[in-house]
Amino acid sequence: MLRVLFVGDVYGKPGRRIFKNHLPTIRDQFDFVIVNGENSAGGFGINKESAKTLLDAGADCITLGNHTWDNREVYELLQTNHILRPFNYPLGTPGHGMHTFEVKGERITVINAMGRVWLDPLDCPFTGTNTLLEREDLGSIFVDFHAEATSEKTAYGFFLDGRVAGVVGTHTHIPTADTRILPRGTGYQTDAGMTGVLNSVIGAAPDGPISKFVDKIPVRWSTAEGRAQLNGVVLHVHNNQCQHIERYQHTEEE
Amino acid sequence: MLRVLFVGDVYGKPGRRIFKNHLPTIRDQFDFVIVNGENSAGGFGINKESAKTLLDAGADCITLGNHTWDNREVYELLQTNHILRPFNYPLGTPGHGMHTFEVKGERITVINAMGRVWLDPLDCPFTGTNTLLEREDLGSIFVDFHAEATSEKTAYGFFLDGRVAGVVGTHTHIPTADTRILPRGTGYQTDAGMTGVLNSVIGAAPDGPISKFVDKIPVRWSTAEGRAQLNGVVLHVHNNQCQHIERYQHTEEE
Amino acid sequence: MLRVLFVGDVYGKPGRRIFKNHLPTIRDQFDFVIVNGENSAGGFGINKESAKTLLDAGADCITLGNHTWDNREVYELLQTNHILRPFNYPLGTPGHGMHTFEVKGERITVINAMGRVWLDPLDCPFTGTNTLLEREDLGSIFVDFHAEATSEKTAYGFFLDGRVAGVVGTHTHIPTADTRILPRGTGYQTDAGMTGVLNSVIGAAPDGPISKFVDKIPVRWSTAEGRAQLNGVVLHVHNNQCQHIERYQHTEEE
Amino acid sequence: MLRVLFVGDVYGKPGRRIFKNHLPTIRDQFDFVIVNGENSAGGFGINKESAKTLLDAGADCITLGNHTWDNREVYELLQTNHILRPFNYPLGTPGHGMHTFEVKGERITVINAMGRVWLDPLDCPFTGTNTLLEREDLGSIFVDFHAEATSEKTAYGFFLDGRVAGVVGTHTHIPTADTRILPRGTGYQTDAGMTGVLNSVIGAAPDGPISKFVDKIPVRWSTAEGRAQLNGVVLHVHNNQCQHIERYQHTEEE
Ligand SMILES: [Fe+2]
Ligand SMILES: [Fe+2]
Ligand SMILES: [Fe+2]
Ligand SMILES: [Fe+2]
Ligand SMILES: [Fe+2]
Ligand SMILES: [Fe+2]
Ligand SMILES: [Fe+2]
Ligand SMILES: [Fe+2]
Repeated sequence: MLRVLFVGDVYGKPGRRIFKNHLPTIRDQFDFVIVNGENSAGGFGINKESAKTLLDAGADCITLGNHTWDNREVYELLQTNHILRPFNYPLGTPGHGMHTFEVKGERITVINAMGRVWLDPLDCPFTGTNTLLEREDLGSIFVDFHAEATSEKTAYGFFLDGRVAGVVGTHTHIPTADTRILPRGTGYQTDAGMTGVLNSVIGAAPDGPISKFVDKIPVRWSTAEGRAQLNGVVLHVHNNQCQHIERYQHTEEE
Repeated sequence: MLRVLFVGDVYGKPGRRIFKNHLPTIRDQFDFVIVNGENSAGGFGINKESAKTLLDAGADCITLGNHTWDNREVYELLQTNHILRPFNYPLGTPGHGMHTFEVKGERITVINAMGRVWLDPLDCPFTGTNTLLEREDLGSIFVDFHAEATSEKTAYGFFLDGRVAGVVGTHTHIPTADTRILPRGTGYQTDAGMTGVLNSVIGAAPDGPISKFVDKIPVRWSTAEGRAQLNGVVLHVHNNQCQHIERYQHTEEE
Repeated sequence: MLRVLFVGDVYGKPGRRIFKNHLPTIRDQFDFVIVNGENSAGGFGINKESAKTLLDAGADCITLGNHTWDNREVYELLQTNHILRPFNYPLGTPGHGMHTFEVKGERITVINAMGRVWLDPLDCPFTGTNTLLEREDLGSIFVDFHAEATSEKTAYGFFLDGRVAGVVGTHTHIPTADTRILPRGTGYQTDAGMTGVLNSVIGAAPDGPISKFVDKIPVRWSTAEGRAQLNGVVLHVHNNQCQHIERYQHTEEE
Repeated sequence: MLRVLFVGDVYGKPGRRIFKNHLPTIRDQFDFVIVNGENSAGGFGINKESAKTLLDAGADCITLGNHTWDNREVYELLQTNHILRPFNYPLGTPGHGMHTFEVKGERITVINAMGRVWLDPLDCPFTGTNTLLEREDLGSIFVDFHAEATSEKTAYGFFLDGRVAGVVGTHTHIPTADTRILPRGTGYQTDAGMTGVLNSVIGAAPDGPISKFVDKIPVRWSTAEGRAQLNGVVLHVHNNQCQHIERYQHTEEE
């Protein structure tokens, strides 16, 4: 049995701060740590420094999303095996979206997929995942499904139910309270939520987004300041089934 | 102090069933019960029968959303004071989106608003709410913000922080785990979640939505069958501030 | 050299009427006639009767679009070789999106493709067309690119410039005045326009769409009545190059 | 009777070049010249220099669109009466969206409006235009309706038919061939098209947009080089009716 922690989109400096400070204090409770790092470089993409921060703090694997390409340093990072971008970018795209790790004598395969509702139309994540699952010796499979629509995310969860150990969504930056094991054994949560400032609008200081919605004139958004919160999901997986799943949430003290 | 229960979108027959069976058993723990009924008639809109079911079970006020107009009987229902549709439909639209109730010597005003990101472009919910709040003697104000994007919903929450007692979102049908009191006293949760079959895709049997995403040929969706879950939010409000907020979840036995 | 007429989306009864009455009077000026029939059955899809009308009047090939599946009779129609649906539906979808015809000793291949901007995310039309073009003995190739965004349609035209004889768009129902031969020999027009009632909103009586935009409450749209207009494009093609392209427009008398 | 020339979105340096060189040679054929300048500063917005170029060449009025705010210098430009931004931005937005000019003893009022389908949800352009039309002494009214969807644009044309002298759309950058006088006297064309390089994708060199659609990784777009084309519409208006409407197109020599 592997104890896996998946941490949702780390957003900017406050996200890196809480991840760096808190993860080491709980790292020994987990056998494998995955973190979505698509907003770890100032909210936009990932760079060498933010990736190093996440890895040094104890992450074994970093997943990404629609912000993958925001920072040019990602091309070098994608040459490693443990930094993944959504697999369903077109054939020929730099990097890869799936990797199998050996942990404590078990195998765990991480897949990073991206949805298409209100996002760029990549290749079909449903059909594409079917193809990926034809490979052998994948061990227990965990999917970070980076998507917006709850219908697409939930449908994807049921589509994979019984065929992977876990499906947890990212991208909305708000954790969902539908954490459970689906009927055929797949651990599921629609969104892991974000790791960044609690009193923010998806990581940004509220005045920028409020102005966008009220005034309709573009303004620059800034990363929010204040207490950060780490949002994650714990899954106990074995033989490609989920034995236990629960939310993990830690907030900095005031 | 008023103890308020807000229940998320009741979906079809299973949603009505759990609402009808469960609410009476807990009704005396609350002073005021609001429920979103936009999917109470077979998933699409509200009709006289579904409205009666919700009201007879103990609801004091029904809110709606983008499915308001799916069923023609809604026009008659909207002539009452306690069934609301989003206020930011154009001037002249039948029905109203705000009502003030007297409960136990206190006033509570319910506002139903709708977001515009990936939804029909109604009048601005932000500016429009400002106008509504200019009225007097509203007591404690609760807003059901029916919207899709987490950015718009969270921005709306901060926009109203300190000016209303509660903002709870609906429409995504998945409850969120960000329940809290914002810095200036407004109780907030991005989405209340749905009241309907647990193992469903936003209330529908998974095969329909999966086919939509995989096959791209339209198929008819059917309401899911099985155990239902009621998702709601409890708020204790007084003097237009939130003193306490927590999620409420009840699932039918297997 | 083949003289090809491509006629834009035939909309409902008035569209069928002008097509049936007018095409036979000009049919001998053309060697091959293609028509988009996705709205030929009352605005929604195609049925056996509307297909027969188009074919009896002189069409050699019918293309479709996002309305392909609106009418159940389409499944039988798609078993023929000369009725095409967009090729980039998922593998396994009934029907096919490409066919090669022999005309007057020359070959002409018709491809029906669909764009993805503001439409359902099918497989990539750009990459998919590359794959189709690898086949041999296609003769002169004509593509009906059913898409919304002018950026996607124009990009697709340049993407195929020199590799196909013609790319004409459909779906917006408004003919465009950018008819020309691109630098490497491909005849191009962003949209062929519609074949239906002139004083309509994309084929429908204006009061329905106006109400949708003004009142935001769904109303039933009806097919417009009045003079119909046939919108098409004439291409002279040879050796997979376009020698001549011009718009063709005919309006019923008052 | 006023002879009005409306010129579609001037895009970057090549757009400014053809406008500057060509307009003076035909300026005396028109009494009033309106030009959409939203892409006149390198494709993104308008600045003092590009505005001066358009005005010096003979434009009497400049309209804008969704790119209004791309360049900071616009705020100063919007303090003048003859540079308009879409009127249906929220109350309090800098600038204005309507102005009445006196020309040869007649009045002509220019309105700049923006659609909401696939664009930012501004205030309702339909209802808002109704309000603007209540003002008195507007003379002949011309509307630049900056919008994407043909359904919204055509519906808006019929909505205003008989109440304004002309409605011409912008934003898609492709001229449409549906130029005509609507039944009650309003001159109408769905889109004026763009003023910029002919062999481009909405003004940009094709490789950028093609890469966007094929590779899905963001790349920088550059303004296309080569022969430019000016796309416009000529309207003869009097007593708020259109007496004549035709497309105007001029292309630089090779
Ligand atoms: Fe993110
Ligand atoms: Fe994202
Ligand atoms: Fe709902
Ligand atoms: Fe809804
Ligand atoms: Fe069509
Ligand atoms: Fe279409
Ligand atoms: Fe433009
Ligand atoms: Fe624009």
